[in-house]
Amino acid sequence: MGTRYVVLGAGMIGSAIARDLAADPACEVHVADVQGDRLAILRSEANVKTTEATLTEPGVVRRVVAGADVVVGALPSLLGYAALTQVIEAGCHHVDVSFMTEDPSTLDSAARAKGVTVLYDCGVAPGLTHMLAGCAAARLAPCERLEIYVGGLPAERRWPFEYKAGFAPYDVIEEYTRPVQIVEEGRVVVREALSEPELLDFPGLGTLEAFNTDGLRSLVRSLRVPFMKEKTLRYPGHVELMRIFRETGLFSKESVVVGTQSVRPLDLTAALLFPRWTFAPREADLTVMAVRAQGQLGGETKELRWDLFDRFDPATGLRSMSRTTGFTATAVARQVASGAFRQPGVSAPEALGAQPKLLQAILSDLRARGVDVVGGE
Amino acid sequence: MGTRYVVLGAGMIGSAIARDLAADPACEVHVADVQGDRLAILRSEANVKTTEATLTEPGVVRRVVAGADVVVGALPSLLGYAALTQVIEAGCHHVDVSFMTEDPSTLDSAARAKGVTVLYDCGVAPGLTHMLAGCAAARLAPCERLEIYVGGLPAERRWPFEYKAGFAPYDVIEEYTRPVQIVEEGRVVVREALSEPELLDFPGLGTLEAFNTDGLRSLVRSLRVPFMKEKTLRYPGHVELMRIFRETGLFSKESVVVGTQSVRPLDLTAALLFPRWTFAPREADLTVMAVRAQGQLGGETKELRWDLFDRFDPATGLRSMSRTTGFTATAVARQVASGAFRQPGVSAPEALGAQPKLLQAILSDLRARGVDVVGGE
Repeated sequence: MGTRYVVLGAGMIGSAIARDLAADPACEVHVADVQGDRLAILRSEANVKTTEATLTEPGVVRRVVAGADVVVGALPSLLGYAALTQVIEAGCHHVDVSFMTEDPSTLDSAARAKGVTVLYDCGVAPGLTHMLAGCAAARLAPCERLEIYVGGLPAERRWPFEYKAGFAPYDVIEEYTRPVQIVEEGRVVVREALSEPELLDFPGLGTLEAFNTDGLRSLVRSLRVPFMKEKTLRYPGHVELMRIFRETGLFSKESVVVGTQSVRPLDLTAALLFPRWTFAPREADLTVMAVRAQGQLGGETKELRWDLFDRFDPATGLRSMSRTTGFTATAVARQVASGAFRQPGVSAPEALGAQPKLLQAILSDLRARGVDVVGGE
Repeated sequence: MGTRYVVLGAGMIGSAIARDLAADPACEVHVADVQGDRLAILRSEANVKTTEATLTEPGVVRRVVAGADVVVGALPSLLGYAALTQVIEAGCHHVDVSFMTEDPSTLDSAARAKGVTVLYDCGVAPGLTHMLAGCAAARLAPCERLEIYVGGLPAERRWPFEYKAGFAPYDVIEEYTRPVQIVEEGRVVVREALSEPELLDFPGLGTLEAFNTDGLRSLVRSLRVPFMKEKTLRYPGHVELMRIFRETGLFSKESVVVGTQSVRPLDLTAALLFPRWTFAPREADLTVMAVRAQGQLGGETKELRWDLFDRFDPATGLRSMSRTTGFTATAVARQVASGAFRQPGVSAPEALGAQPKLLQAILSDLRARGVDVVGGE
């Protein structure tokens, strides 16, 4: 009998995950979401069972995942941690792409006690980026410098934002406001989000702007690399606009008195921006990722480079951000399901990248789906 | 006995008007405002009598202006028309800088019936600009083209807006949203506010950006010039930012549902922007004005050019926008008080500009106060 998967969340990413897992007839795929209409669409596209359930209610996730071999968590970031807690209680292995706000490593001992393998941040970034970083840190002796650049963009650039959100827009603004941890001279230093913009040329795409976002996450502590940074890529100009919106107070969570009301500026900004940041049906997007690692190899200074350039797939209707994030999660889930990776406790994705066979299997799975990471020589 | 003036409003502009009129010991100056603290400051600076009164209540303006020879209206734009109605009822001459929203010419017959002279839009722009336009239209035969450029700016350019508001900030945003009437080939055409930006160099100041605003007002109908436009000047970049704010919906007066509340985006934007757009005490500003008129004179094509470049006055602490707007109003008020201009009914300022002696007297008054309009040859 094949693997029994439960996918939590049938949004942009969760749907891509469910469809990919269900393409293997040997697997059983069960999807849970609070929105029945999403599940109905998914049933029409893939061989999945579905459960419409309010996953935020106590114990619901535990009941939904009962009996699963591997759970894939694709819930909004605010729901990820509470769901993971219940998955561990249910004794299921778990692969997560919720980009949860809380630190999942606080659940490490609970996962060990249950003997379950938990991998978090298993999307494209954080995720694939971290696996490649883990690979670089293992191959170079020592790895001296690590730079990660990644962005999800609309294929068509439209004034004024030249941006659409491939995942929950609130999480995009969170990226534009949350202080950024980077590593310099072996020390963790904090920079402002949207800081240190630089222009980079990408062949076939043109010039993009890279700026600091808090994307290193687990790498800050897991890798002993003295210089590490992660930057987000956008079309040039977007970052300046977002800096101005932030400076004006439009991203503030502190309420402002307006007439007789008290309003959080972020909430109004969200109400105005998000419709403008939402992809139209079948609107093409693209994902750009570049990982650069410098260090010593065989007595010489060496740079390892990985690049990914992925586009919307008209055949499946899946956006690139859904493909690259979702297919990374399913590739990892398969490694857990097959037993190729089993490590009781909570692990970050760089743990996978440090094992060449695992990384090759994951990159091979991605390549089979058209997500082609080049480089690494 | 000297002229008895009543000044309505003791804001940025009204205070400058009251101080200038009161500098003539032969005049009696009475100022009314709803804010007692403003009046107290004004009494400490100038020989004025004051009345603290809610000028929006029925009949209050009429009582306050009773017995005045000339009233100068410097209220916010939303209050200007109602106040003017009562000034006419009281039988006083009136000079206005409120930039009232309604059309003051609808009070023409009421003013005629009372035999009072009313001049509206008597600031720097509209105002001085319109007098110069009226002069050009009278001198050139015919005047074929008229271009007005004007802006009030902070002397110091600070990221991101490089702008501070020299008058009520709501009226600034109104300028950025209200459709613009210009004249092309003798026809009135409507353009979007903030449209048709162009870069212009001003010696000693550098490059400014000019864009369409609805500043022609009465000129659209009063002058028979086939090409007329009025543009506002800002430091380059401001207009693009305001276009983006408008596009995002931040200037919208249509309420948006935010959680359980219904909020007008403009109100929140105002709450966030206006503190950033307010001049600090004694912060220096400047006013730039250029009027260009082309036409035929003595059988030749001729261009008449007027330029004004004025700055904050550290000696008086008066900002340039208060000086140029306020001193134009007082210069006009003196012409009405002396009887040099008396025309029962409601007139626009271009009526003054068509009379060379009146215009020279007004420009001379301004020059005596350091507001020096050059050109016109």
